[in-house]
Amino acid sequence: MPSRTQKRIVIVGGVAGGMSAATRLRRLDEKALITVFEKGPYPSFANCGIPYALSDAIPDRNSLLLQTPEGFKKRFNVDVLVNHEVTSIDRAAHAVTVLGPNNETKTVTYDKLILAQGAAPLTPPIPGVDLPHVFHLTTIGDLDAAKAYIAGHKAKTAAVIGGGFIGLEAAENLKLAGLDVTLVELAPHVLPPLDADMAEPVHAELRRNGISLALGDGVASISPDAVTTASGRVVPADVVLLVLGVRPRTELARAAGLPIGKAGGVVVDVHMRTDDPDIYAVGDMVETEHRVLGLPRVTALAGPANRQGRMAADHICGRAVGYRGNVGSAVVKVFEMTVGVVGLSVRELRRMGLDPLWVSAHPPDHAGYYPGAHPVSLKVAFRRGDGRLLGAQVIGAAGVDKRVDVLATAMQAHMSIFDLEHLELAYAPPYGSAKDPVNMAGFIGGNVLRGDVRVVHADEMTAEDLEGMQVVDVRGPGELAKGFLKGAVNIPINTLRENLDRLDKEKKTLVYCQVGYRGYLAYRILEQSGFKDVVNLDGGFKTVAQSGLTTLQASK
Amino acid sequence: MPSRTQKRIVIVGGVAGGMSAATRLRRLDEKALITVFEKGPYPSFANCGIPYALSDAIPDRNSLLLQTPEGFKKRFNVDVLVNHEVTSIDRAAHAVTVLGPNNETKTVTYDKLILAQGAAPLTPPIPGVDLPHVFHLTTIGDLDAAKAYIAGHKAKTAAVIGGGFIGLEAAENLKLAGLDVTLVELAPHVLPPLDADMAEPVHAELRRNGISLALGDGVASISPDAVTTASGRVVPADVVLLVLGVRPRTELARAAGLPIGKAGGVVVDVHMRTDDPDIYAVGDMVETEHRVLGLPRVTALAGPANRQGRMAADHICGRAVGYRGNVGSAVVKVFEMTVGVVGLSVRELRRMGLDPLWVSAHPPDHAGYYPGAHPVSLKVAFRRGDGRLLGAQVIGAAGVDKRVDVLATAMQAHMSIFDLEHLELAYAPPYGSAKDPVNMAGFIGGNVLRGDVRVVHADEMTAEDLEGMQVVDVRGPGELAKGFLKGAVNIPINTLRENLDRLDKEKKTLVYCQVGYRGYLAYRILEQSGFKDVVNLDGGFKTVAQSGLTTLQASK
Repeated sequence: MPSRTQKRIVIVGGVAGGMSAATRLRRLDEKALITVFEKGPYPSFANCGIPYALSDAIPDRNSLLLQTPEGFKKRFNVDVLVNHEVTSIDRAAHAVTVLGPNNETKTVTYDKLILAQGAAPLTPPIPGVDLPHVFHLTTIGDLDAAKAYIAGHKAKTAAVIGGGFIGLEAAENLKLAGLDVTLVELAPHVLPPLDADMAEPVHAELRRNGISLALGDGVASISPDAVTTASGRVVPADVVLLVLGVRPRTELARAAGLPIGKAGGVVVDVHMRTDDPDIYAVGDMVETEHRVLGLPRVTALAGPANRQGRMAADHICGRAVGYRGNVGSAVVKVFEMTVGVVGLSVRELRRMGLDPLWVSAHPPDHAGYYPGAHPVSLKVAFRRGDGRLLGAQVIGAAGVDKRVDVLATAMQAHMSIFDLEHLELAYAPPYGSAKDPVNMAGFIGGNVLRGDVRVVHADEMTAEDLEGMQVVDVRGPGELAKGFLKGAVNIPINTLRENLDRLDKEKKTLVYCQVGYRGYLAYRILEQSGFKDVVNLDGGFKTVAQSGLTTLQASK
Repeated sequence: MPSRTQKRIVIVGGVAGGMSAATRLRRLDEKALITVFEKGPYPSFANCGIPYALSDAIPDRNSLLLQTPEGFKKRFNVDVLVNHEVTSIDRAAHAVTVLGPNNETKTVTYDKLILAQGAAPLTPPIPGVDLPHVFHLTTIGDLDAAKAYIAGHKAKTAAVIGGGFIGLEAAENLKLAGLDVTLVELAPHVLPPLDADMAEPVHAELRRNGISLALGDGVASISPDAVTTASGRVVPADVVLLVLGVRPRTELARAAGLPIGKAGGVVVDVHMRTDDPDIYAVGDMVETEHRVLGLPRVTALAGPANRQGRMAADHICGRAVGYRGNVGSAVVKVFEMTVGVVGLSVRELRRMGLDPLWVSAHPPDHAGYYPGAHPVSLKVAFRRGDGRLLGAQVIGAAGVDKRVDVLATAMQAHMSIFDLEHLELAYAPPYGSAKDPVNMAGFIGGNVLRGDVRVVHADEMTAEDLEGMQVVDVRGPGELAKGFLKGAVNIPINTLRENLDRLDKEKKTLVYCQVGYRGYLAYRILEQSGFKDVVNLDGGFKTVAQSGLTTLQASK
C-alpha cells in the first residue's frame, strides 16, 4: 500500500524518452512508485543501431538490448511491464487502462502520467505492402524478422523505400551484407534536410558503392520479387524495407482529449507538460519549438527524446528547467562519406518565407601537407543584415561530424556568420588548419555580408545567364581538364592584373576558380580596377561539378 | 614614385601573422604599396608541420613551403624581401632601417608599419648547448640541419628537451624515424596546460610507444653523446632537440620605445595597434587578452596569429573589427592518443586565485555497440555559482578534437556547465551517443552545481582520508580485478538497497564505481535513505587508475 507521500508515476513507453524519465525520476525521488508500460517485448533498446545490425557492422543484435525489466528493477527499483499496452486514459480518475499479454485488462492510477509512445513508421497504401517480404525497420522485432527472411529465403536483391537517414543506413548495410540494393525515393534527391546541390555528391557516393538509385520516383506496387515504381521501373527485390519516415503516436493522447498541434505531435510546454497538468509527453510523439523557425516541429531523434524525458522528470520533482527546443543537428554515415546538417536548408528556409544568404566552401579537413587530408564541403546559410546562422550542411570523408557539432553549438549560442570568423578552434596539422573550415565559412560569409564580394550560386544560374556575361576562369591552365564553364576565358589569377585590357569593364563579369578563393581575389582586383559589375561564383567550379550542373559546363 | 593616395605599408616578418596581414591588405586595397621584410630565407612556411617532417609523416619538407616571393608578387603584388632584417624603427621619420643579405643597409619609409616578428626559441644556459648536435625546431633551417645531422651521423639516440606540444610531436616523429628517444621535462609532467591527473595517461602512451621519460628533471649539461640531467641521469643522445618554448621577439619594438607588457609581449589594443597609432603588432610577439583570465597573455599559436594579421589589415583600411582575445584552444597527437585543451587547468585557475569546481567523465567516443568505440576522458572546470565554463581537458584515442572544439565554441559563447546539458549535437552510432560526452560532462557538473551530488576528487585525497571513511565500491564483483580503493567494501549497485543495514548512516561514506555513474546512483540512494555525509568519487576508479594514484589503491 503506497503511502500518501509516495508519488505514483506511470510512464507509457520505454526506450529513450520513457526510460530517461524513469531513471531520472528514481535518482531524484528514491521513494516514488514508478511503473513503465511498454507495448513491445523490450524495455529499452538502441533503435539507432538497428540498420547496422543488418550487416556484420553489429554482428550480435543482443548488443542493442540495453537493459532487462529485471535489471531496471534491481538498479532503479522501476517496474517495467513489457508487452503491456495502455489503451485509454481516464483523466478525471487519474487512471489508465492497461491490456496485458494475455489479453487481461487492469486499471492503474497515477499522480503523474508520462507519455513516451514514440512514432510509428509510415506505410504507403500501395498494393503488395502487406506481402511477407516487406518490413519496417523500427523495432528489434522488425530487425529479427527482416534478417530471418533474408537468410531463410537467400534474398539477393533488396529495395529500400525511402532515402532519409535510416533509408541510407539500411541501404549501406544491406549492401555490406551482400545484397544488390536499390534505393527508391519520391523526392528528387536523398536526405530531405539537404539542398539538391549538397545531395548530389551523396548520390555519387551511393552509386560508387553499387547502390542503384530510383530518385523522384514513387512506389506503385510491390510483388513478391520486385517493386514497380510510379515511372514504371521494375526494381528486383527479394526483400523490401519501408523506411519512409514516422508519424507521432498520438491516438491515446487524442482520445484523452489532449491537444494535438499543427505539426502533428502532442502539444507540450517547455516542461514537457500537456494541456493536463498531470500528464507529460516526451520524445518522437510531441512537437517542440524549432529554434530556427520559432515554430513547433516534430523531431524524431534520440538526443532530444533523452533530454525531454529528463526534463519531464525534473518538473514532476519540482524543478523548473525548461526544454530549449531543437536546431535539428543530425549526422549520417554513407559508406566512406559523412553527411551532417544543422538548422534548415536554403530550400526549406525559403519555403518558410525567409530570404537567406549562403556561402559554400571546400577546404581540406586538415592541413593539406599532413597525410590523409580530404576535402570537406560546407554550405552555411545566414540571415541578411545581422548574419545570424540559420543552417549548415557539411559533407566529406573526414572531420564532418566535428564541424557540424561546432556549427550546432554556434547556432545554439545565437552566433552569426561574423562570429565564425573569430572562433578559436584547436589546431594541429592532423586535425585541422590554422584557419579551420568553420572559420573559412565565416570569412567567406562575412565578406558577402559586408559587401566585400558579391557572389552568385551555380544552382541558381542557367546557361543563358552565362551567355549574357563575360566569364573569367582564373585557375591555372592545368586545372581546366577538370572542366570549365561555357564561354569562359582563362586568365590565371597570377596574370590577371597585366591582362585587364583583355576584358570589358562595362560588361557584367563572372569570375570563378576551383573552390572560390582565387575568384574572390579576382573579384577584388576587378572591382577596384573599375569593373562595373563583377560577381564571384560561390564555391567555385567544384560546386558546379559535384552538384552535377552539367548545363553550365562546356562540353569536353 | 608612389602617388599621395597610395598607402605605403611595411611588414616586418612573414609567415602566419605577417602574410595574413599582407594578403588581406591587398584584397582590401589594390593600390597600396606593401613590402614584407623577412629575416629568414622563406616568406611563408608551415611551421606547425616541422616536427612531422622529422619522420616520413611528411616525407618532402618542400610541402611545408607555402609560397615564394615570386608567387606573392604575382598573385598579391606584394614585395617580399627575404633575408632582410629590420634593425631599427625611426617613429618620428616613419622609417625603418633594413639590413640586406649582403650587409647593405637601406631606409624605407612607411605610412603604417606592422610588426610580425614571432617568437624566439628558448635556449637554456647550460654547458654544451652550443654543440653541433644540438638543434632548435622552429624554422625550416632548423629542420634541415637536424635531419642532415641525423642522417649524416647515423644518429641512433635522441634527447628532446621540453615536454610541451612541440616536444611531444618531435619525440613521436624521431621515434617513428627509428631513433631511441628520451623526453626530458623540468615539470613533473608533460603538457603544462594539463593537470597532473590528465597528463599521466599521456605518459603511459609515450612509454607504451617506447619513449623514455625524464620528468621533474632539468638538464645539467650536454655532451657530444649524452645529456646529463639535474638529477644525474645520463641520457644517451646522438642528437638533442631544444623545444623549451618561446619568448616574444620584442627587441625591435622595445628599442623603438613601444610598451612591453607584463606577460612579455608587445602591448596592443583590440585592433592590434601598439602605443604608436601607425605601428601594429601581431602574432607570437604580442600579448592579448586571455578570455578566461581577463588578463594579457602571450599566445604563440598559428590561428590567433592569422586572425590578428587580418585585423591589423582591416584597421589600416578603416575597418573596426576587434580581436576578441584567446581561450587557449589547442590539440596535439601523441601516437594513438589525442590530447586537447581549452581554457585553463584546475591548477592554473587556482594559481590565478580562482576556486573552480570540476568534474571528470570517461564515456565512449561513440555508441559502444558500434565497432571501434574508445573511451574519452574529459575534465571540465567551471565557476561556482553560475557554472560559467573555465577550462576543459580531453584525452582519448578518437573524437577528442571534436569535443575540444565544441567546448571551445561553448566557452567563446560564454556558456555554462548547465548549457552543456542542453546542447543538441549531431548523433549517429559511428560518431557519438544520444548523450554526447559533452552532454555527460554537463549532466555531471550540473548535478554537482545544483547540489544533487557531492563529489570528491581522487587527486586531492590521501590514504589517510580513506581510512577515516566508510568506502563503498558499487561495481560488480568481476570489476574488482581492475583494482580497488583501500578499505573498500563491495556492494554492487543492483543490491545496494537491500544491503543498507550493512552500512553506518552516521559515518562519512565514499561511494565509487568505475567511471562515476553508478557511484552517483549510490549517492542518491544513500543520501535519500538517511545517510548523513555521502560523497561520490568523481570519475570513479578509472580516474584513480589512469592518474597513477597508487597510494589510494589496495595492493593486489
